[in-house]
Parts: sequence; C-alpha cells; structure tokens
Amino acid sequence: MAEERRNLIDWQFVDDETWFRLVDRAVEHHRNGKTWTDAARGKSLCLMFFNPSLRTRTSMELAGSQLGAHVTTLKAGQGTWGFEWNDGVVMDGEAAEHIQEAVGVMSRYYDAIGVRVFASGTDYEADRDEKLLHRFVRAATVPTVNLESAFYHPCQALGDAGTLSTHFNGNLKGKKFVLSWAYHPKALPMAVPNSALLMAARMGMHVTVARPEGYALDPGVMEQARTYAARQGGSVVESTDQADACRDADVIYAKAWGGPMIYADPQGEAERRKTLRDWRITQDLMAQTNKAVFMHCLPVRRNIVVDDAVLDSPNAIHLLQAEYRLHGQKAILEYVWDLL
Amino acid sequence: MAEERRNLIDWQFVDDETWFRLVDRAVEHHRNGKTWTDAARGKSLCLMFFNPSLRTRTSMELAGSQLGAHVTTLKAGQGTWGFEWNDGVVMDGEAAEHIQEAVGVMSRYYDAIGVRVFASGTDYEADRDEKLLHRFVRAATVPTVNLESAFYHPCQALGDAGTLSTHFNGNLKGKKFVLSWAYHPKALPMAVPNSALLMAARMGMHVTVARPEGYALDPGVMEQARTYAARQGGSVVESTDQADACRDADVIYAKAWGGPMIYADPQGEAERRKTLRDWRITQDLMAQTNKAVFMHCLPVRRNIVVDDAVLDSPNAIHLLQAEYRLHGQKAILEYVWDLL
Amino acid sequence: MAEERRNLIDWQFVDDETWFRLVDRAVEHHRNGKTWTDAARGKSLCLMFFNPSLRTRTSMELAGSQLGAHVTTLKAGQGTWGFEWNDGVVMDGEAAEHIQEAVGVMSRYYDAIGVRVFASGTDYEADRDEKLLHRFVRAATVPTVNLESAFYHPCQALGDAGTLSTHFNGNLKGKKFVLSWAYHPKALPMAVPNSALLMAARMGMHVTVARPEGYALDPGVMEQARTYAARQGGSVVESTDQADACRDADVIYAKAWGGPMIYADPQGEAERRKTLRDWRITQDLMAQTNKAVFMHCLPVRRNIVVDDAVLDSPNAIHLLQAEYRLHGQKAILEYVWDLL
Repeated sequence: MAEERRNLIDWQFVDDETWFRLVDRAVEHHRNGKTWTDAARGKSLCLMFFNPSLRTRTSMELAGSQLGAHVTTLKAGQGTWGFEWNDGVVMDGEAAEHIQEAVGVMSRYYDAIGVRVFASGTDYEADRDEKLLHRFVRAATVPTVNLESAFYHPCQALGDAGTLSTHFNGNLKGKKFVLSWAYHPKALPMAVPNSALLMAARMGMHVTVARPEGYALDPGVMEQARTYAARQGGSVVESTDQADACRDADVIYAKAWGGPMIYADPQGEAERRKTLRDWRITQDLMAQTNKAVFMHCLPVRRNIVVDDAVLDSPNAIHLLQAEYRLHGQKAILEYVWDLL
Repeated sequence: MAEERRNLIDWQFVDDETWFRLVDRAVEHHRNGKTWTDAARGKSLCLMFFNPSLRTRTSMELAGSQLGAHVTTLKAGQGTWGFEWNDGVVMDGEAAEHIQEAVGVMSRYYDAIGVRVFASGTDYEADRDEKLLHRFVRAATVPTVNLESAFYHPCQALGDAGTLSTHFNGNLKGKKFVLSWAYHPKALPMAVPNSALLMAARMGMHVTVARPEGYALDPGVMEQARTYAARQGGSVVESTDQADACRDADVIYAKAWGGPMIYADPQGEAERRKTLRDWRITQDLMAQTNKAVFMHCLPVRRNIVVDDAVLDSPNAIHLLQAEYRLHGQKAILEYVWDLL
Repeated sequence: MAEERRNLIDWQFVDDETWFRLVDRAVEHHRNGKTWTDAARGKSLCLMFFNPSLRTRTSMELAGSQLGAHVTTLKAGQGTWGFEWNDGVVMDGEAAEHIQEAVGVMSRYYDAIGVRVFASGTDYEADRDEKLLHRFVRAATVPTVNLESAFYHPCQALGDAGTLSTHFNGNLKGKKFVLSWAYHPKALPMAVPNSALLMAARMGMHVTVARPEGYALDPGVMEQARTYAARQGGSVVESTDQADACRDADVIYAKAWGGPMIYADPQGEAERRKTLRDWRITQDLMAQTNKAVFMHCLPVRRNIVVDDAVLDSPNAIHLLQAEYRLHGQKAILEYVWDLL
C-alpha cells in the first residue's frame, strides 16, 4: 500500500523544493503577523505529548487555531491511560492501552496528530532509528507531525530557517553558522542539535560544529549534513576549540547535548561533563565573532549555557526564533493538510 | 418544581421513541462524517472528570466543537480544588469546596455539564443507586450528561447501538449478541457491561451474558434488560460456559468486570479472578461464532482480554465503535440542548 | 520608554472614571446574559496559573471565548518547565527556564497574558510589594491581567462591585458592608480581603473590617481604603467584635485570612487561630443584620466559614458573585484590548 499520508517525520524525507517552499511560507506568515483565516476550518488536530512542552504546545495550538482548525492537547500520563508501545506483549503490567488503539482512535477523531516522544537515552539504535516515533506513525491513519522525537525536531528546524532568512534578509549562503555545544547540568537529547545542523547545511551556510572531545553528533547525521552542504554550496566542519570555532561567525547557535557517551557510559559522561563548565557563551566569545546573532531553541539556563549579558543584548534573537515556531508550524499544517 | 432540564443520566430514563430517534441521529452523523455546523453556537459545555479519560474527553470536546459550542475540560484534583460530596459536613478536612458550590458555579457559566464519576467499588448500594452522580445532578441547574458513572455509561451505549446499526445495516433484531466477561488484572467497574447489556436488549437482539460463577450482573439491571427484550422481541439469557455461549454469535462484546464479590470479599474476588485467565477472546473461540464481529469499549489489554490475532483481524470493529462515540455524543448534545 | 500597555495589575492604578465605567460595563454584560460576539476575534489570551484555580480559569476562558478570542490555559509545573524568577542567578538548580524567556515568548504568541501567582507567605515585603507579579509584568510585552497575586485580586473586586450594583440596583452609597474574618484550618492569603475592602470603600459604602486581634490588614491598604471612602462619602472602621460589627449590616462578606502573624510567627498564628473557631457566619449572626446578603468569593468551607443554613438561604448571593466573575472579566479584556 502506497503511503498517501503527508506526515512530517523529518525534513530528510521531504525534497528540497518542498523544504524551501515551506521556509518561504513561514517567512510569509511572519510578514503577515497574527492573521486568522478559515483555511483549515472543519479540520482538527490532536497534540499528544509524552514529554513536557511550553513553546511547542502553545505555538501549535495557535498555529492550528489561526488557520481555523480545532486543537486538542493531550499529556500522556496526565488524565489519560498509560500506553504499551511494544508488539506481541501480554499486557498484564501497568499499561492499560496499546499505542495501536490509542492512536488508531485519535485517527478516527482528528485530521492530523502531533506527537512528542523524546529519546530513551539508553538504547542508541532505538533512538537513532526513531523506534517509538515510527511505531506511533504506523498506528496512525492521518498525517502525523513530529513535535520532537529522539533524534529530530523538524518544527524547530523550520522555525530556525525562517528566523535566519528574516534576519539575514534571505542571504544565508556563505554565512558562518556555529553550532556550539554548551555545558548543562543534565545530559540532554540530540534532537535539536541534529536538526539545527541539518537545517543550516541545507540552507547553504558554512557550518562548524564546536563540541568537546566525546560529544560528536551521530555519524549518519553528519554525513547527511555534508551531503546537503555539498549540494547547496556550503560546508560542514567540526572543532573541539570553541573560541577558534566562533571566530568570525555570523551565527552562534548554542545547545547542550549528552552525546553518544550517555548510552555507553552515563556515569563517565556525567563526570566528564562536569569539567566542561567553560563551554558557555560569554560576551568575550561573542566579541570574537562577526557581530554574530545568538540563537537558542529555549528553554535556556542563564549563566550556565549563556551569560545574561549575551542573552539580554540586542544580538540575541532567541525570542524571534521562538516566535517563528508559530509561523513555521502554520506552514507545516498547511503542508500536511495540502492547503498550500 | 417540575424538572425541566434535559439531563442524560441513563437511557432507562428516556422513552423508546427518543432512544431510537437518537440512535438514528448518531447513524446520520456517522454518514455525514466530520461535519462542522453552527447549531450550538453560543452554547458552552463543561466536562468534569473525576476519573481518567481519553476517548470520552476527546470525542466530547469534538462533539461540542463540531456543533459550534465551546468546551472546557476540567480534571478534578489537577489544578482544581478537592471537593466534598456529603451534606451537613463540617468541612475541616482536605476538601476546600463542596460539590454544591462547584457545580452551582459551573451551572452559571456553562449551558451543560458532563460528569464522569466512577464506582466507589466499596459501597454496593451507593454505586447501584448512583449516589455521587445524583448528588452532582442535584447541584446543577443546567442539563447534565453522564460521562460514565458507577453503574452506567450511556454515551458508550448509544455509540455501540449506532455501531451495530451501521454494521448490520439496521437489522439487529434476531442477531445473537454475547456479552462475554474477560479476565483482567484489576477488578473493573460494571458501568460498561450494564450499559451494553441494556443497549443490546433494547435493540431487540438475543443477548447472552457469558460470565463465570460469581460474576453475575446486578439483578435489577438484568430484570430491566429482560423487560426491554420482551418489548422488542429479543431475549436475555446467562451462561457460565464461554465457549458454548459464543457459538453462532453475531457479536462478541468482551468486557472485564469485578462483579458483586468486589464489594463483599475483594480479597476472595482477586483470588478467584486469578484462576480465570482463560476467559480470553481467542481465534479458536471466534471460529465457533457466526463470523461474529468483535467489540470492546477500549482501553483493552492485548493478549489478556483479547488476542492480537482477533483484535488485528478485519472482524474487530472496536475502532468504528470508538469513532461512534463522537457521532453518538453529537446526538446527545443535540438532545439535551433541544436542537433536534 | 513610556508604558503604553494596558495592564490590569490592580484597580489602584486605574482612575475612578475607568473603574466606574468598568463596573457599569460588567453590569451591562450581566444584563445581556451569555452573549457571544466577534469583538476580540483574531486576539488570543494566555492564562498562566502558578496556583490552582476553578472559577478564575473557567470564567476567564469563557470571557475570552465569548468575545471571540482564543484562550490557552497553562498550569506551571503541569507539563511545563519549572521557572526561575530571580535575576542574575546561575541556573544550575531545578528551574530549566527563566520567567524572562517564558513570558517573553508568550508575549510573542498571545495578545494578552493573565497570571496567577499567590503570596509567598514568608516574605511580607516581597508579598506586599508584589515582587513576583511585577517581575512577570516586566518580562511581558503585551497587556497583563492579574488573576490573583500576593496582595490583590482585581478580577474578584470588579465582579463583587458588579454583584452589589445589581443586587442593590446601583444604590450602594450609605449601605453597610462588613468584611468579616472567618476561621479556616489554613492561614489563607490576603488578596481577596484587601481587594474586597478597597472595592467597597471605592463604591462609597460604610465598611467595617471585623477581625480578631492580630488579624489586621496591611496599614497601607487600610489607608488607601480610607482615602477612597473619604472621596466617595463612605467610611472605613475596624472592630474586633464580630457580633457588634454585623449589627444592621446590609452585606456580610466573609473571608478567612492569615494576617501579618503568618510572616512573623507562623506557629503562634496557627495556635491563636485554633481558638477562633467561633468566627463563623451563623443564622443567629445574620439575624442581627439588616436582612444582609451573604457574600463569599469561594471556595468556601461549609460549617467552618459559614453555616449550611446561611449558605443555603435566599440571602446568600455567592453564586451570583461567582457568575459576575465572567461579566467583570469580559469588561477587563475589553479594557486591556481597548475595545470599549
């Protein structure tokens, strides 16, 4: 059976033409401001969060509502039953319902489903292969939108591309984009750095991934980024020297992540991370750049990931970036519902 | 003062003409698909859940929204105050508010209130007499809809009647409907089996309640079912032999319930239940039927209540059944708001 | 930069003309009943609750919806990240996000933000000076509405003024309003009594604050109330004799609060409070009044704060008072969005 549904699992499964069309559409929504239309009147959207959310939930509710759709937000485990994700199981444990039925039923009610399901943090292959997300999508019979999965955050990526397009007035090619690892008290997942890297490479930027030894991103993701860069006239390099990497940058995109060590040796990762508190975005670091803008997907820990002085400076465009989530997601809903 | 409000406490309080009219209306909504109207524009509905919900909440939110109404969902104990249900109490305990005020206030705000309040599982008379539900209804001054109470689940019943009507193209009389008890790790309440039994009998089907010794349904409910059957040309019998009961069935409706023992001897019930794991719907069992459809109200535990092979077969119509909740509840809202 | 935003922090920051205009508007909404308009179509409202809510949440959702706006309710700590409120902090603790970013982002999405953030109960100056509320407002760039803060509850105050106006047909001047302290098992905050006192004084009523020794309201609030009273031809007195205070009253407004002792000596306050269980509104007490109406902001503990006989009598107008929250808040949204 051919897959007719328009899912948004990750941008890798979407061709360049569509990607750039959606970036343009997000920019258009930004330009138009808070417009409310009836484009999706009669449609309804269910958001299923298996992990917490502030921006994604509110911006997606508004994205749907501004298009005239009805949106319901469900927080799994808060007033709903726990779910079983594995197949063939004798369900005599805690889970009262299988994801197959839960998503199957939602597919009968709603015209699209958004799902947030984070990385396990313990099974690298399962996370890399998006085991949970794919199981969810298989149970659905309506378009499914990834609201951040184990390895990817496509809603963030589209918003970020729109943010950069607006800020640089569409001239991204040749600009230097530094994705900088940052210290954080917790080993965070890699969905955002993966998606930011792929986005910047696909936009034709010169990308440097600055990160300590041991915090390399997944080789497959790096490879995909290099493929994009080659196609779009950009480049992708890595560096373990943050200060050197940031020199002459046009964009500093800070993000903490746990890296592959969290799977193999979580204790060792935690100890190593403690020694890396200097991986923080400071004004001194920003002074070395080409008057770079500072970006972060939020939530951000002040004076841990980035200093107050940077975040409160005019060069910080994290709020525009957050705002762009709304614009991008309107474009995404238009895409999955074929309204463009 | 005459009660002018159109509540939906249970179908027993609704005459046959209205019942069949609402079944027809649900079928009509199913035929029309996801239509959005302005029929209830300007009206608002408050859903108060004292127990978890997935299907009921989402289908009721959509039912109201598709009719143009505004819907608010409240989960008692999640961001709201705890409530006192008993009268004459000196409220110096945990409860900060009496249900009398909470429901009285919601009646000022909303045009109808839905309420889910499950069985106590400890006081049989209170559960059978729907003590909590009736206290709630007494505090309300707008139509109240039962979203599953101690003994009844009228929203499920109407959806099930519509499902069967659609599946059998309106020809339910003479069909064999088996309500089969199923093993479950927990002693579940009896609202769904009671309502399914009454529904099938009222639709003129030949009903067999298959359940182990000690798991009989309430005598008053059985009596009411027999009255319906006599009126509609059907029948109601009981059996403690699942295989024999299922022979030549047109419908297998599986459901776990705790039975009267959970009130008198919960420990004994739990031990007895452990010996009954074979009360499970298998393909072998289905093979004995008249190509029966499999029904379940969901959530269902796979390979405990029903085998994967049955649930994943084309004869399983549990998703249509879940979908019908939406169609039925649109009819219910039209009824309580007098929009038909 | 001049503050152009129309916040509603407290009525003290709003001139008399506007206050009385909004009271009149609330009364008009009450007279018009549950009307739905498109006045605020295209606008959206975010409600951020850092403390529980039933009436405020539902009435504010309906107020926005009845004006055609989209409303989102967020419960901090339920599915959202914990927030840091202090500035200059190295955020290596529990809080994953600073209120500066959270509110900054919501300001990008929504056209107004409502916030409920209760008193600390431990730092009197911080509570009196509304430290948290002001920090929140500083982070916002859209109109902010106080949904109950440490010291004030302006939504309650406007609803109460409308309730009294309707009940007394606009003739409040000269009426005797008794704000009576009541026993409660918990030391409650002072936002409601402060706001009720200021409201009654501003409406030109003769106000008596009846409360035990040690439960005086804040001197600054008392002073503000006397200023209003002087301007409007009313008066403000205090009494430690509940029975004497209630004599010939036209309104008994009961409310429990912890008083200044909860900051200086919480243990002592708790022990003193235990001896004050007689501060309860009884029928005997009501019999001494001028057929007074009974008011309470709810939730109310029956037979602790007020006897069943009083609350269930025709003179209790607490449900009208709760209903008026909706009418008043429609006026507030019209005010902050400049729709009047």
